[in-house]
Amino acid sequence: MTKPLILVTNDDGVYAPGIRALLAAMQSLGQAVIVAPEQDKSAVSHSLTMNRPLRVRKLEPDIYTLDGTPTDCVTIGMNKVLDRRPDLIVSGINPGPNLGDDISYSGTVSAAIEGTMYNIPSLAFSLAGEAPFDFAVAADVAWKLASMALQFSLPENTLLNINVPACGPADIRGIRFTRQGRRVYKNAIQETFDPWGRKHYWIGGGTVQWTGGEDTDEQVLRAGYISVTPIQLDLTNHAGIDFLRKHWQM
Amino acid sequence: MTKPLILVTNDDGVYAPGIRALLAAMQSLGQAVIVAPEQDKSAVSHSLTMNRPLRVRKLEPDIYTLDGTPTDCVTIGMNKVLDRRPDLIVSGINPGPNLGDDISYSGTVSAAIEGTMYNIPSLAFSLAGEAPFDFAVAADVAWKLASMALQFSLPENTLLNINVPACGPADIRGIRFTRQGRRVYKNAIQETFDPWGRKHYWIGGGTVQWTGGEDTDEQVLRAGYISVTPIQLDLTNHAGIDFLRKHWQM
Repeated sequence: MTKPLILVTNDDGVYAPGIRALLAAMQSLGQAVIVAPEQDKSAVSHSLTMNRPLRVRKLEPDIYTLDGTPTDCVTIGMNKVLDRRPDLIVSGINPGPNLGDDISYSGTVSAAIEGTMYNIPSLAFSLAGEAPFDFAVAADVAWKLASMALQFSLPENTLLNINVPACGPADIRGIRFTRQGRRVYKNAIQETFDPWGRKHYWIGGGTVQWTGGEDTDEQVLRAGYISVTPIQLDLTNHAGIDFLRKHWQM
Repeated sequence: MTKPLILVTNDDGVYAPGIRALLAAMQSLGQAVIVAPEQDKSAVSHSLTMNRPLRVRKLEPDIYTLDGTPTDCVTIGMNKVLDRRPDLIVSGINPGPNLGDDISYSGTVSAAIEGTMYNIPSLAFSLAGEAPFDFAVAADVAWKLASMALQFSLPENTLLNINVPACGPADIRGIRFTRQGRRVYKNAIQETFDPWGRKHYWIGGGTVQWTGGEDTDEQVLRAGYISVTPIQLDLTNHAGIDFLRKHWQM
């Protein structure tokens, strides 16, 4: 039997320790090939580079990089680097969580969205902690969940967004299937000044608050479980169509 | 009564003709303020700039620009430019359609996603044609749909993705509420060579095909209607949770 072919990418760049831990975990499941950005591409979301050409460089056997986004890596990896369709696409391991509404910004999750558009089972992994990061436990989790995805497959047109608590293996209470939480929204903005005294705004920082209930990604993670959220490609609010037909008098 | 305050943005940059046509249409509904990127930011999706500060410049009364993405424009516009919460956020008018799975790449749609995260009714407008673009009809449509959003509101946590056919007003058959179509996926990739003979890949071009049925955005648009698709923030595949609980033996 042919070994599974696994495409490995991330948004932190090919030299990030999280992707190297993920590669090692995937190598015990099949042939794993990295196609990852040259540079840190955090918070690029599902950006696709269409205004310039992209160059692929081979760094080591089965490790490739290109000067683009995670989405570029999946589409170029699928079509130009791998010699056959992969059986699985994995993205991460991101240092820091990808939860609730914030997954919309995430390059890590967007790579798995792109893989799902190609009908390849795709998983995004994040380690929900703070620096310094130890990816050992999350890599074991990635190994386990990737093997289950290969064995039991995924719901149609759906990827998994996986967040692992930053604790020792004995303190992880198990795995929970969750829904996306809702962020109590406010992007924090710092004011800063350049050397010429002009005001600038810097987005980031602040404390995030969440709502949504006990079965959401953030709540389950906080309770010490691994959160596995199925995320779908179809963004339509189907009930919203009825709302509009009923309430919008045209 | 206070006039509605409307935040206007796009992904093609503050100098694009589409946003100027949209501004003019919104000015007849209330006070309209542009906060838009300095440069073309097409296909940046929901990118948020967090690795550097952003500078806001005022170009004209009620026209501001910053060196960032559409999402940056909404978040900085909401928190630092406008002096009160806007009643509506509009994005566009994009030259070219935003349909089906491709909306995930769109800066135009992502600006409306960001507005929805702030619980502001948000609309994304695209003119589904090819250059040269005439935004007059689409601007009239934007005026009509924006006034309806102000009057009848939107489903909760939901934005509208609106595509207008590129034809004369007499040839538009009406408005249809639609769901997102499914792209038969293949990002086309051209091979090209740099002056040193090295191969590069350029994503883009090709012919897109669609599936999904008669009530999808692309089909309805092709039939000559304005397509209005309600898009929700919650990406969870709720039925997928049941699938995983049933099929994944852990």
